[in-house]
Amino acid sequence: MIEKAHRIHHTQEYYFSKKLKEVALLKAAGREIYNLGIGSPDLLPDVSVLNAIQNAMTDAHAHQYQSYNGLPQFRTAITQFYQRHYGVSLDPATQVLPLMGSKEGLLHIALAFLDVGSKVLIPNPGYPTYDAVVKLVGGQTVYYELNDLWEIDFDALNAMDLSGVKLMFVNYPNMPTGKAASKALFEKLIAFGKSHQILIVNDNPYSFILQEQPLSILEIDGALEVALELNSLSKTFHMSGWRVGMVLGHSAYIDAILKVKSNMDSGMFYGIQMGAIAALNLPDSWFEEQQLIYRQRQALVYEIAEKLNCKINKENSGLFVWAQVSDAVDDVSKFIDYILYNYGVFCTPGCIFGSRGNRYIRLSLCMDCADLRLVLNKLTDFVYPTIEIDTGTYTDLH
Amino acid sequence: MIEKAHRIHHTQEYYFSKKLKEVALLKAAGREIYNLGIGSPDLLPDVSVLNAIQNAMTDAHAHQYQSYNGLPQFRTAITQFYQRHYGVSLDPATQVLPLMGSKEGLLHIALAFLDVGSKVLIPNPGYPTYDAVVKLVGGQTVYYELNDLWEIDFDALNAMDLSGVKLMFVNYPNMPTGKAASKALFEKLIAFGKSHQILIVNDNPYSFILQEQPLSILEIDGALEVALELNSLSKTFHMSGWRVGMVLGHSAYIDAILKVKSNMDSGMFYGIQMGAIAALNLPDSWFEEQQLIYRQRQALVYEIAEKLNCKINKENSGLFVWAQVSDAVDDVSKFIDYILYNYGVFCTPGCIFGSRGNRYIRLSLCMDCADLRLVLNKLTDFVYPTIEIDTGTYTDLH
Repeated sequence: MIEKAHRIHHTQEYYFSKKLKEVALLKAAGREIYNLGIGSPDLLPDVSVLNAIQNAMTDAHAHQYQSYNGLPQFRTAITQFYQRHYGVSLDPATQVLPLMGSKEGLLHIALAFLDVGSKVLIPNPGYPTYDAVVKLVGGQTVYYELNDLWEIDFDALNAMDLSGVKLMFVNYPNMPTGKAASKALFEKLIAFGKSHQILIVNDNPYSFILQEQPLSILEIDGALEVALELNSLSKTFHMSGWRVGMVLGHSAYIDAILKVKSNMDSGMFYGIQMGAIAALNLPDSWFEEQQLIYRQRQALVYEIAEKLNCKINKENSGLFVWAQVSDAVDDVSKFIDYILYNYGVFCTPGCIFGSRGNRYIRLSLCMDCADLRLVLNKLTDFVYPTIEIDTGTYTDLH
Repeated sequence: MIEKAHRIHHTQEYYFSKKLKEVALLKAAGREIYNLGIGSPDLLPDVSVLNAIQNAMTDAHAHQYQSYNGLPQFRTAITQFYQRHYGVSLDPATQVLPLMGSKEGLLHIALAFLDVGSKVLIPNPGYPTYDAVVKLVGGQTVYYELNDLWEIDFDALNAMDLSGVKLMFVNYPNMPTGKAASKALFEKLIAFGKSHQILIVNDNPYSFILQEQPLSILEIDGALEVALELNSLSKTFHMSGWRVGMVLGHSAYIDAILKVKSNMDSGMFYGIQMGAIAALNLPDSWFEEQQLIYRQRQALVYEIAEKLNCKINKENSGLFVWAQVSDAVDDVSKFIDYILYNYGVFCTPGCIFGSRGNRYIRLSLCMDCADLRLVLNKLTDFVYPTIEIDTGTYTDLH
């Protein structure tokens, strides 16, 4: 057998990939599992989106290779969306690149800007893929800890050794904590990027979920010089399976990313682009309806978190509730397994987002109110024992 | 501005990305251009494929994240396809991984198996993306020249310094030359891979185009130990824009690729998987109909090549005609531009596939017979002058 590359000796199979197999095995064994672990929006895209892809199937050239940078009308729909919702003006010809999900954009950006050994600032807690992608391309991860409000501590950041740092991943509204950025925080970030010549990449897929006023880092004066923004239709339009995202910023940066992308894939499926255009053009009323649904769910998930004796901050937003476990819990992974095996409810342990998440669990809003009420019901008499857990006949599924 | 990575100083924007912009500008300027340059199948997918994606839009979970390794029924459809058409038995659970086009698989494989400095054998002539992808991940390209029959010269290969060579890209049926492999050639390749512990990656998207008996490298005894195969629905089913491909081979290799892939994207859009299943299940009659169409086109493209005073080998197959220019042509790039600017016909210069393609042009079969006859007509009195070309008012478009 031929050996794998050293780079993937570091890389664990993405956590959800493994944990969801375990949950699937439990289901296959006949257990009813309520999965609050993954943020895969269960709501449906608007019917206009479905009509758009279905109708597109008979268009000329619908099945042929598409342009690497997408249909002009798709790029225009993106820049109009940015104008309407964030007040940001961008050139559809040069300052936006459609992506097959913002997740793939992380790798493109890493390949476009990092050399072997380049350092990258990554939030703790944060999305595990940032670290995985940096390591895949031979870069070096430098974690920065978010403070107790889950904001960036610029004093601590400036006190760090920043030599060799090329790039900084930022993610506001933040996953997993639900913290939103203020304009002042983005302003400080842009100033920080300029003074240290660090490319700031804001991963922004959550700004329409329970957010009164969506914010983009590109709203800040001079942001184009040192910042890129990733965005996605996954959460905003309940289209996670469609794989539609985008990167926005200075044309020189977009060009560099296009150089990578054009060497590794082709343009996005025409029908998906047409569906995405329909989504981007949805009226304000559509966003308001989704907010209403998520607001109701959030209230129930707060109750669930409280049943689990967790502390929560009700000022945060996003697609998840970030809940601090009680001091009585000594091992959060065991706590997670206890809930999974005894109550059939799966939550994500905060530790997978970094050490700052060690005392937290993440609960998703991607479940309808009826099911959330069932979960609440199951947990009515929830007690967490301080003794060793017996996972019984399920130990073989670990 | 923040500097790009050194790795993309090597990487040119993919040739077609730039050249097609030039062709698009000519079209925008009102010129009628017949594009024989790109292999984007113009024929339509079967109606069962369109029905499948349209119907899938209302299925439960159609719009949510999909599993990293695809729907079980999709993987089964792939392995059944391999059984039926190649006589190769594979385990759908572990020996196949769906890809968003086989092109993205090249990068996944490079990231999974190459370390910085690892050497990779790449065919000359060959698909330019092999080189680009190896350089993107910090690998080192070592070209091997195909012989005059466009086969692999094992004597020359064994005489090379093979230290540090980890991987070899092979592409039969070959693009751009149209040469098909014999079983004997694949046997020698597997033996070569085993004796030097080199992972052989056969890129196999063309085996159903003008091929009497499709061949897979996985048909060879012991192939799984040292070989992977990439395949694609793009050419076989006229679905290039859909971005559906796959990699097949030993579960340990597939696992390593999945580790990379699960860190950079998510599973394929459900509707696309459903359409792909419908395509893979098409009966033999469907393949025969497509062959008939391509056979008619091929005859006309042979005539076009002869009008351009090129030499061709009518025993080769695939989606292109590979044509050697006459000795009267001193600069093939100028020859290409002469045909483009004076006759409105675009062909691909062979040099972009490597030095062994310097005296060749590549003509695509992705044009219907009516248009091919128009091209033939335009070229009725084709003469190539031995003087300097005047591209007239179009020089600004270069």
